[in-house]
Amino acid sequence: MTATITPIRRDSAPSLDPMIALVAADMNAVNSVILDRMQSAVPLIPELAGHLIAGGGKRMRPMLTLACARLLDYPGTRHHKLAACVEFIHTATLLHDDVVDMSDQRRGKRTANLIWGNPASVLVGDFLFSRAFELMVEDGSLKVLKILSNASAVIAEGEVNQLTAQRRIDTGEDRYLDIIGAKTAALFAAACRIAAVVAERDEAREEALDTYGRNLGIAFQLVDDAIDYVSDEATMGKNAGDDFRDGKVTLPVILAHARGSEAERGFWRDAIEGRRASDEDLAQANDLLIHHHAIRDTMERARHYGQRAIDALGPFGASKAKTALIEAVEFAIARAY
Amino acid sequence: MTATITPIRRDSAPSLDPMIALVAADMNAVNSVILDRMQSAVPLIPELAGHLIAGGGKRMRPMLTLACARLLDYPGTRHHKLAACVEFIHTATLLHDDVVDMSDQRRGKRTANLIWGNPASVLVGDFLFSRAFELMVEDGSLKVLKILSNASAVIAEGEVNQLTAQRRIDTGEDRYLDIIGAKTAALFAAACRIAAVVAERDEAREEALDTYGRNLGIAFQLVDDAIDYVSDEATMGKNAGDDFRDGKVTLPVILAHARGSEAERGFWRDAIEGRRASDEDLAQANDLLIHHHAIRDTMERARHYGQRAIDALGPFGASKAKTALIEAVEFAIARAY
Repeated sequence: MTATITPIRRDSAPSLDPMIALVAADMNAVNSVILDRMQSAVPLIPELAGHLIAGGGKRMRPMLTLACARLLDYPGTRHHKLAACVEFIHTATLLHDDVVDMSDQRRGKRTANLIWGNPASVLVGDFLFSRAFELMVEDGSLKVLKILSNASAVIAEGEVNQLTAQRRIDTGEDRYLDIIGAKTAALFAAACRIAAVVAERDEAREEALDTYGRNLGIAFQLVDDAIDYVSDEATMGKNAGDDFRDGKVTLPVILAHARGSEAERGFWRDAIEGRRASDEDLAQANDLLIHHHAIRDTMERARHYGQRAIDALGPFGASKAKTALIEAVEFAIARAY
Repeated sequence: MTATITPIRRDSAPSLDPMIALVAADMNAVNSVILDRMQSAVPLIPELAGHLIAGGGKRMRPMLTLACARLLDYPGTRHHKLAACVEFIHTATLLHDDVVDMSDQRRGKRTANLIWGNPASVLVGDFLFSRAFELMVEDGSLKVLKILSNASAVIAEGEVNQLTAQRRIDTGEDRYLDIIGAKTAALFAAACRIAAVVAERDEAREEALDTYGRNLGIAFQLVDDAIDYVSDEATMGKNAGDDFRDGKVTLPVILAHARGSEAERGFWRDAIEGRRASDEDLAQANDLLIHHHAIRDTMERARHYGQRAIDALGPFGASKAKTALIEAVEFAIARAY
């Protein structure tokens, strides 16, 4: 059995469709930049990068840059190149993540490291990362460069932090929030903030969009971590229970461990340290997660951050873009249902 | 037995000492920046980065930035941060290279990937790379950012190119030169060129220093590739014959293969494709390298690029800095003797 989640009430299922429709034309321009700038005289680079980039990702981060630019009625095109740059940074981190985690599936496809090997994934990731910086430099805004170079350093720091927390059952909720704030939310925040920079809005608008993106990113990651336990391969595009088998201490585990009996804590320690990774162990983990409302409360936390994201949009007047950005938060949370 | 090299004539052995003395005070400032900016709240980052950064490297690339700035009588301090940034980029590529090559020794020490594992090396490399960009952004010159982001992309492209050439005996001299031009010479060139940018010299001076660095970088790599066959572990700080066992097609192999008999070409194919990696095979390889003057002529090529590096300094008047830069080229070549 798997843990289940009680759905929130809503007239219709929240969807990314309004945001997708809002930025459709812009996204075509971004996709052109992406395709154009992942080319290289070394054929393996577009081949490997294309596998992941064309591989059915939601383009969530560049979409946020575009939607925030719409929110601000930005009339120019600078954000196309910068949104591509955000996607390149994200793709580079995915390539390296899959090497680090020895993943074999992402977005329902075999991972690049499985097909082309770890060395190729590491080096093509480096290329995309460098290419992202070239794109930023072409744009020429030192402010954007500062935001995105800082986000990149924070992401890498968060990834190392996560690595050193791996298989450590003593990881607490604060450290976990630090990790996901860095490895996931920093790029969401930067993707939104740079829209205010290209639109030349004041510091308060920049901060508001940063806050929106950061809280959405945290909610997004919390939901991902819940989904890893509750979903199945078909919906998730990767294997259910991967985090459990990899000994990743995510919030569901932190809550169930903190609320568990002595014996249950022993179970979690064994599991996280790699001594319990069978299907039966995963089933037992799911039982404990349900019993202690660990998935339900992970989702509760996600809703909390989602609400903060929505509230950060307060200063902006009603618009189709604002509605789409709000619904994107609701969608991020509803993915788990 | 190993292949040997006939030494060039010179009154005294060329040395890096003049360059080291020239930039000693500046290098202290650079080292402070390096130590300061490799810090992180995540302890593994300074621990792992420090292992490599404090681990006895020559600081060749930042030293070039400093020496070129001296050549131009640059009176400021901007180059300290930028030289640190060059060293961070270099360190990041070393960390990733060692993962890609599964190396176990560098600079006479165990590699970071051997001690802390591949995931940590990949992620700390990413961190240093991002931190390098943060440093550049702090400096604030878009021109410097363009030079170094372009160099970074070229390096990564060269690394992927090298990866796809690995174990391919049909790699020719042109492709090999493309690879080392990208993976090694691009950062040497950029390290030198940025000195002209901070000193606000004209395009011709920038180009001259770029040419100096690029040719020195090529010479440097050619000598490294020769040394891999002729030297021993104590001088090299890594295992002799590593390239041979890894199936790397370097210039000595390209020359011996091109000049060899049908049977010898069969030997090289077998070796490069991984079917001959014993000590006896390495000894046979060395015999063939000697017989066909492959090491001698690799060194001849290195001298050619070294001479071009020295000639690129023509526009600059005589100075201690110029003498040191010239002797650095001679040292790069003499390392093999």
